Amino acid sequence: MTRALASWRDGDARRAVLDFVRSVAAEVPVEERVAVFDNDGTLWCEKPIPIQLDFILRRLTRMAETDPALRDRQPWQAAYEQDHAWLAAVLAEHYAGNDRNVRLLAAGILAAYDGITVEDFEEQSERFLRKTRHPTLDREYLRCAYAPMIELLDHLAGNGFTSYIVSGGGRDFVRPISQEVYGIPRERVIGSTVAIEYRPDERGGTIVRRAEADYLDDGPEKPVRIWSRTGRRPLLAAGNSNGDIAMLGFAQHPDRPSLRLLLKHDDAEREFDYVAGAELALTEAGRQGWTIVSMRDDWATVF
Amino acid sequence: MTRALASWRDGDARRAVLDFVRSVAAEVPVEERVAVFDNDGTLWCEKPIPIQLDFILRRLTRMAETDPALRDRQPWQAAYEQDHAWLAAVLAEHYAGNDRNVRLLAAGILAAYDGITVEDFEEQSERFLRKTRHPTLDREYLRCAYAPMIELLDHLAGNGFTSYIVSGGGRDFVRPISQEVYGIPRERVIGSTVAIEYRPDERGGTIVRRAEADYLDDGPEKPVRIWSRTGRRPLLAAGNSNGDIAMLGFAQHPDRPSLRLLLKHDDAEREFDYVAGAELALTEAGRQGWTIVSMRDDWATVF
Repeated sequence: MTRALASWRDGDARRAVLDFVRSVAAEVPVEERVAVFDNDGTLWCEKPIPIQLDFILRRLTRMAETDPALRDRQPWQAAYEQDHAWLAAVLAEHYAGNDRNVRLLAAGILAAYDGITVEDFEEQSERFLRKTRHPTLDREYLRCAYAPMIELLDHLAGNGFTSYIVSGGGRDFVRPISQEVYGIPRERVIGSTVAIEYRPDERGGTIVRRAEADYLDDGPEKPVRIWSRTGRRPLLAAGNSNGDIAMLGFAQHPDRPSLRLLLKHDDAEREFDYVAGAELALTEAGRQGWTIVSMRDDWATVF
Repeated sequence: MTRALASWRDGDARRAVLDFVRSVAAEVPVEERVAVFDNDGTLWCEKPIPIQLDFILRRLTRMAETDPALRDRQPWQAAYEQDHAWLAAVLAEHYAGNDRNVRLLAAGILAAYDGITVEDFEEQSERFLRKTRHPTLDREYLRCAYAPMIELLDHLAGNGFTSYIVSGGGRDFVRPISQEVYGIPRERVIGSTVAIEYRPDERGGTIVRRAEADYLDDGPEKPVRIWSRTGRRPLLAAGNSNGDIAMLGFAQHPDRPSLRLLLKHDDAEREFDYVAGAELALTEAGRQGWTIVSMRDDWATVF
């Protein structure tokens, strides 16, 4: 047998994980062993922009190529002109609590796949994920998942845990590759979605995407979605940003072991070094005793 | 080994089920073997009123006992005075497409458990289901599930299927007993829900119910919820009413076996004999070749 969590360096984080899994295996019935993982920045890389945002920007660019009228409207303009400064500013505003331009971006995102079936959307997502390389890391997007986290998912599965992805990003974007990349089947992917609608016909009908938000699986919505989908309170939650605070807080029981992992991106050499969007989460981790996982110090290998 | 589907009489319905399961087991990968079941009137009895409506009416009655001002407001008045005629009229109006009084009833239902945690709600549901008897069938509510359907669920599980309950009724009402009664774990219960909200605190926070509808898992919403939860198109769908038409229509594939079961309540002696609310479904079954299961003719045992 290979050493569990082989890509993790010996240290407090690795020890906390192994101790926690051992306690759960000894004390908790299998059906209650639920773990939840944020995706962007927790299971795979989210810089310089989230992978799904790259997918959407390429689509907006194609729309602007076809329809010149879109070229002076945001967010098509930024996509078409590859104006990363505008996008960076929108995200910075968002972290500062100003969502005016985020709404503009969201409207573009919603319009980008209006009216296509969920199957077609998945096919496009999958094709993009299989053929596109990360802009700076010299690897395909599908190889941008963190090896230590995949080992953790394997270790949990080997100890009777059921793990879910609880992404702030799109549920249907991740589903086509969740089994292959993470060993998590599609029905255990929880994430954001646009409104979808069933249109019956004589051949089984279709489900199509509408240009209307349904919900954003972020912040306090994460515990709500976890409850809705699993009917359980998780024992383990792993995240990396302010949007994961509620989910990490929710993974706490009066009479069960629990583990909250906050991944800290402090590895400019092998990945990225940033705290924007994670400031409050880092404060909460200190205050509530969550386990901080330092990418630089706790991981021997990143990818 | 006991005979599969022992409570089913030999006949077209039983044969269709066995043939279908055999084909799927031979042709379809395990992870695609998804089956979906309506609950009220399909897996357990829904007459003279749905079990959950009984649960809610008792709660409304207790509210009116405590607060006399509620006694001349609907639906509290009907609950308090045990005015089944008013309730029957509301349901009849609903089947006829007039939902004015249904909205009044829904508002009462929403108010009935406003602000309680999901855990408390489940505890009350479970206690009610464990201690209450059916008003006419001389058996506890928990023994009002149909034996032939439980056998079908077992037979499917034994052949690698993953079955989900897709109830028009409340998701969190059924979850506490789904494993025990149907062998279906709580995370595989899909159903209607009120809006719920996460309230953080230092001990893991709570999720509370709000007096606001989220969605009603009925009609075309059923395929939407099935897709959201499973990311798959089912091979088998079973229902009994107009609200199940979309779900049955959705269980159809160009290159996979599929089976759509419509349970017909035609057994006044052992259960109930009614078509109200199922008229369109019966027409669709004839038109699209769905398999009709006659409770009277196809089942040797009902409970």
